[in-house]
Amino acid sequence: RMQSSRSKPCSCPSLKLREVASMYFTMVAAFLVILVVALQGSVPRESDFPYKVPLDPQGLLELSWNVSYPEQAVHFQLLVRELRFGLLFGMSDRGEFENADLAVLWSDGHNSYFGDAWSDAKGQLHLDSQQDYQLLGARRAPEGLYLLFRRPFSTCDPKDYLIEDGTVHLIYGILEKPVHSLQAINISALHGGLQRVQLLKPNISIPELPSDMKTMEITAPDVVIPSQETTYWCYVAELPAGFPKHHIIMYEPVVTAGNEALVHHMEVFQCAAEFDSFPHYNGPCDSKMKPDRLNYCRHVLAAWAMGAQAFYYPEEAGLAFGGPGSSRYLRLEIHYHNPLVFKGRRDSSGIRLYYTATLRPYDAGIMELGLVYTPVMAIPPGEDNFILTGYCTDKCTQLALPAAGIRIFASQLHTHLAGRKVVTVLSRDGRERQVVNADGHYSPHFQEIRMLKEVVAVFPGDELITTCTYNTEDRSRATVGGFGILEEMCVNYVHYYPQTQLELCKSAVDPGYLHRYFNLVNRFNDEEICMCPQVSVPQQFYSIPWNTFNRDVLKSLYAFAPISVHCNKSSAVRFPGEWEKQPLPSITERLPEPVPHCPPAPGPQPAVPVPLKLGELRRD
Amino acid sequence: RMQSSRSKPCSCPSLKLREVASMYFTMVAAFLVILVVALQGSVPRESDFPYKVPLDPQGLLELSWNVSYPEQAVHFQLLVRELRFGLLFGMSDRGEFENADLAVLWSDGHNSYFGDAWSDAKGQLHLDSQQDYQLLGARRAPEGLYLLFRRPFSTCDPKDYLIEDGTVHLIYGILEKPVHSLQAINISALHGGLQRVQLLKPNISIPELPSDMKTMEITAPDVVIPSQETTYWCYVAELPAGFPKHHIIMYEPVVTAGNEALVHHMEVFQCAAEFDSFPHYNGPCDSKMKPDRLNYCRHVLAAWAMGAQAFYYPEEAGLAFGGPGSSRYLRLEIHYHNPLVFKGRRDSSGIRLYYTATLRPYDAGIMELGLVYTPVMAIPPGEDNFILTGYCTDKCTQLALPAAGIRIFASQLHTHLAGRKVVTVLSRDGRERQVVNADGHYSPHFQEIRMLKEVVAVFPGDELITTCTYNTEDRSRATVGGFGILEEMCVNYVHYYPQTQLELCKSAVDPGYLHRYFNLVNRFNDEEICMCPQVSVPQQFYSIPWNTFNRDVLKSLYAFAPISVHCNKSSAVRFPGEWEKQPLPSITERLPEPVPHCPPAPGPQPAVPVPLKLGELRRD
Repeated sequence: RMQSSRSKPCSCPSLKLREVASMYFTMVAAFLVILVVALQGSVPRESDFPYKVPLDPQGLLELSWNVSYPEQAVHFQLLVRELRFGLLFGMSDRGEFENADLAVLWSDGHNSYFGDAWSDAKGQLHLDSQQDYQLLGARRAPEGLYLLFRRPFSTCDPKDYLIEDGTVHLIYGILEKPVHSLQAINISALHGGLQRVQLLKPNISIPELPSDMKTMEITAPDVVIPSQETTYWCYVAELPAGFPKHHIIMYEPVVTAGNEALVHHMEVFQCAAEFDSFPHYNGPCDSKMKPDRLNYCRHVLAAWAMGAQAFYYPEEAGLAFGGPGSSRYLRLEIHYHNPLVFKGRRDSSGIRLYYTATLRPYDAGIMELGLVYTPVMAIPPGEDNFILTGYCTDKCTQLALPAAGIRIFASQLHTHLAGRKVVTVLSRDGRERQVVNADGHYSPHFQEIRMLKEVVAVFPGDELITTCTYNTEDRSRATVGGFGILEEMCVNYVHYYPQTQLELCKSAVDPGYLHRYFNLVNRFNDEEICMCPQVSVPQQFYSIPWNTFNRDVLKSLYAFAPISVHCNKSSAVRFPGEWEKQPLPSITERLPEPVPHCPPAPGPQPAVPVPLKLGELRRD
Repeated sequence: RMQSSRSKPCSCPSLKLREVASMYFTMVAAFLVILVVALQGSVPRESDFPYKVPLDPQGLLELSWNVSYPEQAVHFQLLVRELRFGLLFGMSDRGEFENADLAVLWSDGHNSYFGDAWSDAKGQLHLDSQQDYQLLGARRAPEGLYLLFRRPFSTCDPKDYLIEDGTVHLIYGILEKPVHSLQAINISALHGGLQRVQLLKPNISIPELPSDMKTMEITAPDVVIPSQETTYWCYVAELPAGFPKHHIIMYEPVVTAGNEALVHHMEVFQCAAEFDSFPHYNGPCDSKMKPDRLNYCRHVLAAWAMGAQAFYYPEEAGLAFGGPGSSRYLRLEIHYHNPLVFKGRRDSSGIRLYYTATLRPYDAGIMELGLVYTPVMAIPPGEDNFILTGYCTDKCTQLALPAAGIRIFASQLHTHLAGRKVVTVLSRDGRERQVVNADGHYSPHFQEIRMLKEVVAVFPGDELITTCTYNTEDRSRATVGGFGILEEMCVNYVHYYPQTQLELCKSAVDPGYLHRYFNLVNRFNDEEICMCPQVSVPQQFYSIPWNTFNRDVLKSLYAFAPISVHCNKSSAVRFPGEWEKQPLPSITERLPEPVPHCPPAPGPQPAVPVPLKLGELRRD
């Protein structure tokens, strides 16, 4: 009865609010002009921004940055070599221009503005109500315009990208024409692209380097970069005869000046010791002329990807190379990314190894975690996030690890083209304890070896659980596990010390239970899938009619069926024991989801573009 | 290389911060004393708090409140009739004292304090870092102490309870001894309890009532409330002979003064027209003396539960009663909740019907949505949130609803004891459009008829999807659908107009597909479950070994298998058409999750208890 008085319509306050807001913004803008002019005096030193990456293949946009963990923020310095009428810079889930979080500099030809914006699912730009890209300064220099700005890792604004560990997909776009407002920018007509980086570099201290340290450069011998978008170049190098055992304690990229935007990633592999010699090949890796024997050069010694810096081994450990029992042959592989199809560029990039004859206390080792390469682990077609999990069980670590445990200090995640996320978690007594490495924006095109923020100690009886998330929306048949580029893998190569005999600790579903699944699908769906044993597992997967029931039950199978564990000294030699039909590790306690920090008060700047004193911008 | 300088340990600022904070809090506290004294002058009127409910069975704590939708906040007025050394008031998921969000008034015998607190999973109290229960005033009166405070619906503090539509479990506790701090309160030793209310009453306008309106009270005839915790009392009333058709347009509770805390809920049912007469029973509903024929009095005319107010029909509609073709017999059922086992209390509570002979344009009707009462819909034991879904399909609404559609204005959710959540969503062309009614803290002990915030229009071809969530953690065998108290239901009784022939629009899984499930479980698990047709569906469910695979596959079955649809004129008469093996409605677009509003700036008060001038409190 008392409710009627409260249901009267009320007058809408939005108009008045708008007027007040407008006055307020005018005042704020006036203040900011003064602020920006003042900021232009400060010239940041290069050491303020230790990380650097070119954004576009021409190198017109160059990003430097640093990470402040106390402030939970990234400081960016963007060098714009030839400013036209502005640019977009930002981040999105996988590098798309829709649903992106953007810092935008735009000009109407007379005045220039900077603002924090977001793009919706259709690519339409909107000024963000909370300005979290905070402009710190803008400065003209002979080489171009420097923009300095800051972004907290998390902003608690649902329109904003959350900066996390692992891969970040940076996007950029160049405005070729003046625009009268942010909303007028047509994102589909932009000249732009994406660049992947690990934005949150770990804040680890550099171990002291020994005085007897020597260097060796494994570099391409003045290669002419092919005029095609993608080239994998293979070059075989050789250690001197009688080269004794050394420890690699650090390595860093050597990139030919001017090719910074073309050299996408590089790896140095050691060849197999079982062969006395390898041909001195120098050419594309996919050439018909490439000798087959180079397929036996797969043991990773060093890996670098764009945006990565030098890699340091922990002070107690080094990666052994040279000496008896190891091959003298090394294979350098360089991925050239040349989307603008430059012709005749010459390149001598590669990796510089820093090594010492004074061996450190421990040899470092590499262990493979995740899934066995087998078709029994499959992903139905048309899935947007299908999860497969590989287990390194307590039984295996109990048998193979020393009582004092091992220390994992770096990790390289690996899947084929459908991989979207990879995470490895350490579990002890059924309780998840620590994330070993996680990448929620993983890309198969960006497989760096990453130093871990924290060294992870693994003891006998611990479990290492590696989970990969796949997207098969563009595929029409099942994707099975295997070596092929259209088959899938789920691997975490962990770098650790002291080296043990355990090279491989992986799993796959028990094949007998998978057979029960095929039978079940067959009976439940009244379909005639040939269950004859002569039909291969991939063929059986390809013939499944993928309705929701068959999809769900495959997930249930993988979450329930016992596993076959590969607890191996090498890919062919298992540790002694019973490894078939092992129970799945049970997890009774999960790690809590991280709660993002919101930026501390005083909060972000108001939602108004910041005018910049850049003078008039002209068309060419 | 530049990283080493940034890894130095820094001195911990916590001690200094604490000193500064302490000074700050002292100043704030001093200010608040003045504020509280000032606030005590304002005396709120009763009409400021239109909703009222006793919290404890003795009526020592009485809560009144109002809801401000513009402010997105609830204002509480708590009357404490006999203040001891303080009290707790708050909310939690299902009325438990752990993980609760609490306003606490406590006294050390000399000084009293008010603060916003939360209890952890062990029941330990903590002062909340964000004070979202905002004290507005405290006032001594002859009847007791009035505490006035305010709580936003949502606070964006993860420790706080989110006030949503539907049931809210209020909890209270009385401090019998002085305590020196909030942390010293032993929650397990408290005298306390819970009370369920719909806190967010809909803000709907009251339709105008006609001048020829009459009233009729269906009340208990001076019943002596039995001295036991729970009594369902049954009383049969009779309409006058020749009573013509009227429209009930409103009803309200009549509760005997002093029994406010004992009368838990009341319902008026109309008996079946097929019987000419019903015995005039007056006694407990579970008595052996109760005539069986009263089981035919199940058509709900009116329902009220504690904390509810008057129920109004929309101005175009009324609930028909009287006239030819309807029974003259009504059954009143009262649930007395008497946990303190008072003896000899007399009660004449009931429901007052407001009706008119001037019929409104439309008869109102009641339609049953959800699941058919059949054992084929089952919940495995040991589940903490198992979901079952019942469908009212497009095919049924196409056939049974008028082209102009129907308007749902009220809803009563119903499950048996394992029910924890119920929600009905309207879907059109595969897209979810609107929540009809949702209760995320549903309790089978609190089944009000609730007026909807917004009337929901349903047209031919629409789908009404009702989802119930169950908890069977305390059960050791499967819970099947059915009428029994340990069987389950999933029903939404929707009140709508104009009345149609469609009384029941529900579904259940196709029994043939369930049979395939039993076969599949049998084969996959190598178990010997008797699949003989003479074994009943409940027996088959009871014999399943409930591993994760069998649980998951049952979920997959319910999400995939075709359904049997009950599109009925009455429980026995179907509309013509094919209703077996119907496809599940497919949903291509879900309603977005609501994003909670955070309280607008200026933000909540600092984390410091507010001192109250209550004078010294004494023990009895």
